[in-house]
Amino acid sequence: MKKIVGLGELLLRLSTKDCLKFSQVNNFNADFGGSELNVLTSIAKFGLPVEFITRLPENDLGESAIMEMKKHSVGTNFIPMGGDRLGLYFLEKGAALRGSKIVYDRAFSSFSTIKKGMIDWKEVFKDANWFHWSGITPGVSQDAADVCMEAIDVANEMGLTVSTDFNYRANLWNYGKSPSEIMTPMVSKCHVVLAGEYASEQYFNIVPEGTTEKEKMQSLCDLLVKQFGSIQKVAITNRGDISASHNTWSAVLYDGKEMHESTTYDITNIVDRIGAGDSFMGALIYGLNTYDDKNALEFAVAASCLKHTIYGDANLVSKKEVENLMGGDLSGRVQR
Amino acid sequence: MKKIVGLGELLLRLSTKDCLKFSQVNNFNADFGGSELNVLTSIAKFGLPVEFITRLPENDLGESAIMEMKKHSVGTNFIPMGGDRLGLYFLEKGAALRGSKIVYDRAFSSFSTIKKGMIDWKEVFKDANWFHWSGITPGVSQDAADVCMEAIDVANEMGLTVSTDFNYRANLWNYGKSPSEIMTPMVSKCHVVLAGEYASEQYFNIVPEGTTEKEKMQSLCDLLVKQFGSIQKVAITNRGDISASHNTWSAVLYDGKEMHESTTYDITNIVDRIGAGDSFMGALIYGLNTYDDKNALEFAVAASCLKHTIYGDANLVSKKEVENLMGGDLSGRVQR
Amino acid sequence: MKKIVGLGELLLRLSTKDCLKFSQVNNFNADFGGSELNVLTSIAKFGLPVEFITRLPENDLGESAIMEMKKHSVGTNFIPMGGDRLGLYFLEKGAALRGSKIVYDRAFSSFSTIKKGMIDWKEVFKDANWFHWSGITPGVSQDAADVCMEAIDVANEMGLTVSTDFNYRANLWNYGKSPSEIMTPMVSKCHVVLAGEYASEQYFNIVPEGTTEKEKMQSLCDLLVKQFGSIQKVAITNRGDISASHNTWSAVLYDGKEMHESTTYDITNIVDRIGAGDSFMGALIYGLNTYDDKNALEFAVAASCLKHTIYGDANLVSKKEVENLMGGDLSGRVQR
Amino acid sequence: MKKIVGLGELLLRLSTKDCLKFSQVNNFNADFGGSELNVLTSIAKFGLPVEFITRLPENDLGESAIMEMKKHSVGTNFIPMGGDRLGLYFLEKGAALRGSKIVYDRAFSSFSTIKKGMIDWKEVFKDANWFHWSGITPGVSQDAADVCMEAIDVANEMGLTVSTDFNYRANLWNYGKSPSEIMTPMVSKCHVVLAGEYASEQYFNIVPEGTTEKEKMQSLCDLLVKQFGSIQKVAITNRGDISASHNTWSAVLYDGKEMHESTTYDITNIVDRIGAGDSFMGALIYGLNTYDDKNALEFAVAASCLKHTIYGDANLVSKKEVENLMGGDLSGRVQR
Amino acid sequence: MKKIVGLGELLLRLSTKDCLKFSQVNNFNADFGGSELNVLTSIAKFGLPVEFITRLPENDLGESAIMEMKKHSVGTNFIPMGGDRLGLYFLEKGAALRGSKIVYDRAFSSFSTIKKGMIDWKEVFKDANWFHWSGITPGVSQDAADVCMEAIDVANEMGLTVSTDFNYRANLWNYGKSPSEIMTPMVSKCHVVLAGEYASEQYFNIVPEGTTEKEKMQSLCDLLVKQFGSIQKVAITNRGDISASHNTWSAVLYDGKEMHESTTYDITNIVDRIGAGDSFMGALIYGLNTYDDKNALEFAVAASCLKHTIYGDANLVSKKEVENLMGGDLSGRVQR
Amino acid sequence: MKKIVGLGELLLRLSTKDCLKFSQVNNFNADFGGSELNVLTSIAKFGLPVEFITRLPENDLGESAIMEMKKHSVGTNFIPMGGDRLGLYFLEKGAALRGSKIVYDRAFSSFSTIKKGMIDWKEVFKDANWFHWSGITPGVSQDAADVCMEAIDVANEMGLTVSTDFNYRANLWNYGKSPSEIMTPMVSKCHVVLAGEYASEQYFNIVPEGTTEKEKMQSLCDLLVKQFGSIQKVAITNRGDISASHNTWSAVLYDGKEMHESTTYDITNIVDRIGAGDSFMGALIYGLNTYDDKNALEFAVAASCLKHTIYGDANLVSKKEVENLMGGDLSGRVQR
Repeated sequence: MKKIVGLGELLLRLSTKDCLKFSQVNNFNADFGGSELNVLTSIAKFGLPVEFITRLPENDLGESAIMEMKKHSVGTNFIPMGGDRLGLYFLEKGAALRGSKIVYDRAFSSFSTIKKGMIDWKEVFKDANWFHWSGITPGVSQDAADVCMEAIDVANEMGLTVSTDFNYRANLWNYGKSPSEIMTPMVSKCHVVLAGEYASEQYFNIVPEGTTEKEKMQSLCDLLVKQFGSIQKVAITNRGDISASHNTWSAVLYDGKEMHESTTYDITNIVDRIGAGDSFMGALIYGLNTYDDKNALEFAVAASCLKHTIYGDANLVSKKEVENLMGGDLSGRVQR
Repeated sequence: MKKIVGLGELLLRLSTKDCLKFSQVNNFNADFGGSELNVLTSIAKFGLPVEFITRLPENDLGESAIMEMKKHSVGTNFIPMGGDRLGLYFLEKGAALRGSKIVYDRAFSSFSTIKKGMIDWKEVFKDANWFHWSGITPGVSQDAADVCMEAIDVANEMGLTVSTDFNYRANLWNYGKSPSEIMTPMVSKCHVVLAGEYASEQYFNIVPEGTTEKEKMQSLCDLLVKQFGSIQKVAITNRGDISASHNTWSAVLYDGKEMHESTTYDITNIVDRIGAGDSFMGALIYGLNTYDDKNALEFAVAASCLKHTIYGDANLVSKKEVENLMGGDLSGRVQR
Repeated sequence: MKKIVGLGELLLRLSTKDCLKFSQVNNFNADFGGSELNVLTSIAKFGLPVEFITRLPENDLGESAIMEMKKHSVGTNFIPMGGDRLGLYFLEKGAALRGSKIVYDRAFSSFSTIKKGMIDWKEVFKDANWFHWSGITPGVSQDAADVCMEAIDVANEMGLTVSTDFNYRANLWNYGKSPSEIMTPMVSKCHVVLAGEYASEQYFNIVPEGTTEKEKMQSLCDLLVKQFGSIQKVAITNRGDISASHNTWSAVLYDGKEMHESTTYDITNIVDRIGAGDSFMGALIYGLNTYDDKNALEFAVAASCLKHTIYGDANLVSKKEVENLMGGDLSGRVQR
Repeated sequence: MKKIVGLGELLLRLSTKDCLKFSQVNNFNADFGGSELNVLTSIAKFGLPVEFITRLPENDLGESAIMEMKKHSVGTNFIPMGGDRLGLYFLEKGAALRGSKIVYDRAFSSFSTIKKGMIDWKEVFKDANWFHWSGITPGVSQDAADVCMEAIDVANEMGLTVSTDFNYRANLWNYGKSPSEIMTPMVSKCHVVLAGEYASEQYFNIVPEGTTEKEKMQSLCDLLVKQFGSIQKVAITNRGDISASHNTWSAVLYDGKEMHESTTYDITNIVDRIGAGDSFMGALIYGLNTYDDKNALEFAVAASCLKHTIYGDANLVSKKEVENLMGGDLSGRVQR
Repeated sequence: MKKIVGLGELLLRLSTKDCLKFSQVNNFNADFGGSELNVLTSIAKFGLPVEFITRLPENDLGESAIMEMKKHSVGTNFIPMGGDRLGLYFLEKGAALRGSKIVYDRAFSSFSTIKKGMIDWKEVFKDANWFHWSGITPGVSQDAADVCMEAIDVANEMGLTVSTDFNYRANLWNYGKSPSEIMTPMVSKCHVVLAGEYASEQYFNIVPEGTTEKEKMQSLCDLLVKQFGSIQKVAITNRGDISASHNTWSAVLYDGKEMHESTTYDITNIVDRIGAGDSFMGALIYGLNTYDDKNALEFAVAASCLKHTIYGDANLVSKKEVENLMGGDLSGRVQR
Repeated sequence: MKKIVGLGELLLRLSTKDCLKFSQVNNFNADFGGSELNVLTSIAKFGLPVEFITRLPENDLGESAIMEMKKHSVGTNFIPMGGDRLGLYFLEKGAALRGSKIVYDRAFSSFSTIKKGMIDWKEVFKDANWFHWSGITPGVSQDAADVCMEAIDVANEMGLTVSTDFNYRANLWNYGKSPSEIMTPMVSKCHVVLAGEYASEQYFNIVPEGTTEKEKMQSLCDLLVKQFGSIQKVAITNRGDISASHNTWSAVLYDGKEMHESTTYDITNIVDRIGAGDSFMGALIYGLNTYDDKNALEFAVAASCLKHTIYGDANLVSKKEVENLMGGDLSGRVQR
């Protein structure tokens, strides 16, 4: 089996328990996450080999992060340790009509100081067939953007499939470049994208047409494929925000010709929706390496539906659990 | 800004975790609450200065209660420490079709021994424009009722708005007077009341007419204003008890001429419904000091809707969070 | 009051908290349970005397199990201590569309080594009027099946009512006998059965006819009563699996002439559904000793509906709580 | 085996975890205790039948207390339920040079309202050979003192051994009688007493002579036996308070002729010293029913030494554990 | 009473529980601390008014920090909110022969961006008689050093006593200036210093002479007073590091003429030694405002001895608790 | 670097928190351990590659165990999954004079069903230079003993160093063979042994001579080397059991000529002493691969001294932490 490689920032997530507000707590749950890592953790759980490229400080927190990745069979062999600090985020869990709240504390992180040349991408990609990154990575710093571009170039040279999740974060992109300037050449060399209406407008000023949700998604796919010739597949997830505790969830996958629409799931009560998009991306990459497009989409939607029942950033459900739901068993019965 | 002053009992709440029954636990969460304090905490959180009058024992528990009020910017400068004990209540949290259960242990509390003359109300009300009390306060003891009447009189003399929440508690009123005898002269000097059908009958034998819920609420408002000439505004909350975990929630506000009806919210899953009425009252007082009547009502309903997602007796949501919901965002999306 | 006696295995349940997956935890909640014990605990809570027959190891875990039964007024006077180990099961709590998962570790348990002659059934049944067992008991081992048959025979001789819950467990029945061979003579001496469609087919190859759920339940009752002349009453519970967090719940009771249908409850969010069938059985036994058949059924359905809100294997709700729900109060209001 | 009967108040203990101060916590551990109950729990653990007489409120807390006593095989068959509230105490755990702090909240408890005639002492004592009470019981209220005297009288009539622990509490004795007036007739009918220098002076103005600790203890024994002709045995424990975490512990037992001195144990780090005296008393009663005086003393000292390692009010060590320490094994080795 | 004012950084402390290593935990206790804040919290607990000057981010963490200070009666009226992030530190608690480990993450904090002119020191010092800072403050950034110098100057002009704790931190001082260059003019305007041998050498190249610990401390006092004419009093604490769990603790206070030596305490087991020096400084400031020098020293040593038994950065013991220990009661007895 | 390979059983440890007794808890901490795994985890932490051979059930618990080993860089590439169950042990933590108590539940484990031929030892040992096993392994079952002998034989053929820890467990060896019969041929092919006086007598009837502890240890080394010609080094640890919380700790290492004696450490308060011998063995293996004999011994004693401060079965201290203690820093100072 060929490896799936990802590049991105690992964050320590410090979250309140039991939907308490920040001012009510005197302890935090502590877990590691980060968009691209979440994607890889999920893929590793399904059984494919993965390798994560990031930068971590040379202290006990960096070491603990490495240990946690190893626990989940995420490869850590090419991580250039160093830099000042681990990026963090604080999470206040919402409920019902009160949304969760995130306070980021990721500036000046070790990952923001990763530099071109630190990674021997030819070596990293030797046994790999896929490279994944998301819009968060180039948003962190110029250095991170440079390393990401460097990786995309080598991946293309070596014939890997390159995927990206648009993942626009308004509080990043503070280093003086516009997202458009940075993202355009990068996406131009990608083959599979997880897109979104808001991000597409922010990054590329692409605004889909149509009145129904379906028309808009079709339009967005068309426009993206038109603008970026490299793109072979576009996926879009569709979340119905009934409340912080109750969502609907579905997705589409456009394969260049046809837009497949998935089953729609009704999810209540949500345990943790952070990382749902990442879990979709991870399962889609796994699916595209395993099934046909239609089934890859269904696998990805079922997997990310289940992510909403998993505490933490990363999806820890097994292939068997996903296939069970994908096969139509919505009962939630006790498995003895 | 003028201060909002409240008078009432502070209770230590000892509650079971995770919906466990009393016989299943060997520890209790410990939080401070009490109807009038909850009202003030909420107002302080929105940004107005508040002062709480109560009585607390001179021991570590009384001191901890003072510290907790300070944390929430509730003024504690006029509290006459003393008496025997802190009132308590034990709370077993329910779920689905099993309601929460409360075991009160508030008899013989320090607050029940507060005495006329202990509080210099002229001094307390110097920078204040509002005095709030609820039906719980005079229900505690003859002394508490006397102090409450004393405060209402001085407040009226000094031109403060006086508000009350009827808050009938069947397990109080044990000191030999009928609620009616005590409550009638008190409510006769109030300007804003949070009323309820059951309490109005218990206290004043007032029974609204009408077949629909709306007709009954209109009737209750009319009857109250008719009986108590001082009353300028009547608010009534309307809870739809679908289960212990799922409620609907709305309210009306009668301004002497018109009965405004609020938005109805659907709340599931409820984190903690204790103190929802208090959070409505607090937000209404804040609202009436800030918005017009219609918006004050909407602010109060939105705030108390959010209270159902906050653990503990008191509402800790910010003005911004309330205005966000009041503005129509029911999505519960993650705020990054 | 006459005693209700039960025979079965007591298990230590080790469960993950907060819907975490097995790989996410470094501690387990630890509680005692087991189908027949759950039945008795529930009956004891309603106020009838009960006695549990099982086998437990002579170590601190066995002793702790005894202490827990005493806490719940379950008689432990006839338990032959000994054998190697306490049976266990590990429980990963599910949510929404992810079902709970159980890993059994009950092989070679002390209970599996219980032997004929260890229990003086005449003595045990002296003040008793009812004996209960479930299909789990004879599924554990040949020895357990022998002791169960021994008890059924003495109970019949002494005029006790004998009840059983079919409770088919696919991962038991490993000792070389078919379930049918063992269960047929046992059920032939039972008077009250809690049956299920799947179990009836597995045990006796009985497949109900009909197209609607109601027709099938009626057919199953008819077929069972026809095959087993001793059976006077057949109960069947009917769970609607909307998700792991949301179920509907109802039951029927066939009294030999008529099939009574109960109220249907909608239960969300479920706290713990393990032991719901046992809580139905316990409340049915209590009900048949206290009410007429129709009310016994309603009591049993209401009690087991409430079980879904109780953490742990056993139902800890009081008679008053059940009768309150049975009386139609679905509001889940706070009881002060 | 004959029963040991005790009379006293059961308290709910609410304690801070991990040596936190009251103002640092938002939850409390909740455990049941009380001097005479602790004595009985310990005896039950060693294997003798015990029966506890107290009064508890008819609510969920009273019921939970009953369940906890049943768990520990403490008989609860003669408890007249009723009264207003369960007595409480709050405990802040100390460490090193900071002592633990207790805030009592036991006034107006159900036990304080127990009345003469509520208990059929002849029935209670039918199968008993020993009655135990402590100085706390008559200190609670005139009613409690009356019931205690009533019990002592019947016990003497029926030939039971009566024991008492002086247990002087300065914050009790608030009902207008001097401790001396109440205690003198009571102790005059006791046979075994656990005395202390401070309590003896407070109760009876008895001040031992001597310069060494041993001389004083000998003197105290002599003076007590001289003053109270009924007394056959006097025990005195001797705690060396090195710090809140480190104590030495020993005792003497005077049998009317000779004062036996026990082994002295060095205990560090103390897990919980509350109830150490009660555990001594319980083990002494067990010992005097089982061993000769010298060994009864050694058993009592070893048992109460081990109590310092047990969380909670009551000693939960087994007879085997005590005998192991009593036999000289101070190693604290892992027992596999 | 005049206010005590402090300037410094507030840090969020994230610590492991139960002496677990970083790689073993998935949650952290979260508490606020920081050297100068700890000093003020302690003083406020003893009853003097205090005001803390710092800078905090305008987010929920900054707001929670404000709430916590209010809880402890620490004035927060002059804090210029703003900047990027709250400084943090991670703490792994040690035991026995394994020391605790701290990972700082305080770079780029809001406090490091405090600027001259942000604070109206004349206003701040209006009702104050004392200003306290420590060597950490100028070590954070040039801006923080500038603000500190600004405060010292105004304090001197307005006649306040200025105190400092040398508090050398090797991992600070990264902004291009030597500690000596910055500290010399600052200490030149201080009146009370808490010095240490190591810090004195690092800051001022002052190396005490002498062979015994006492001679060295005397020499250090002499050298400091000689070099800095403004210094009136020098205190030095003396920790005997027997292990992470067991220390001895004493101090000296040189009043310009005489070096007072305190009682030496033996502390085992230590609950939390972080902030012990700060608690000494706080109690010393309180003591110098309350007692004579000798008693101020004894108060400070007793208070900081007790700090070792208090979880968290700040000392929460009361004046009464300190005076009890200061009076010689080392027993750690339960206070009922 | 060459790999260190170990063979043994992995156990799930379920332990009580805070020194509670079994009957006091309703949850258990859950951690993985086992003598040989503990040895390898420790070595991996110091930086050498390790590979663990065991057998685990194919369920979520087996999978979680694999994940935990990966987290600690323990190789899991040759584990033949299968069998019925994971072995367990229950641990009640002691304190002061009460020892910890272990209830084993390891019978019928997956490891006990490992079979000759399941492991390709030639492949396992390809890059290895050391094989470690302990007396627990052959004590589990005849199959486990056969596999262990098989491994020892191949290791000898391939020139690996073979080490063993005698680790006699009285509750194993239940399969009909005497320990002597099984252990003798095994130890005859070992080069490094961690011996003990008790185990040596149980296994081989070897009883050392001498009056002092040192003479006995010297004698035991001589006798072992005399009886087993293959043995090149004998280590013996020496624990002084002052209490469950306080031990002294040292060791000797006999290199065939000379017996080196280590530093003696005083350890109080112990966090967790389980696995101390394993941590000594692991550090000794690391030491013998890294230092001379004398320093290997000092490294092993310092490492295992620190283990007493680490919760769980395995030693998680770093090489740097060990060398710091080995270098004489006993202060337990905070490391900033």
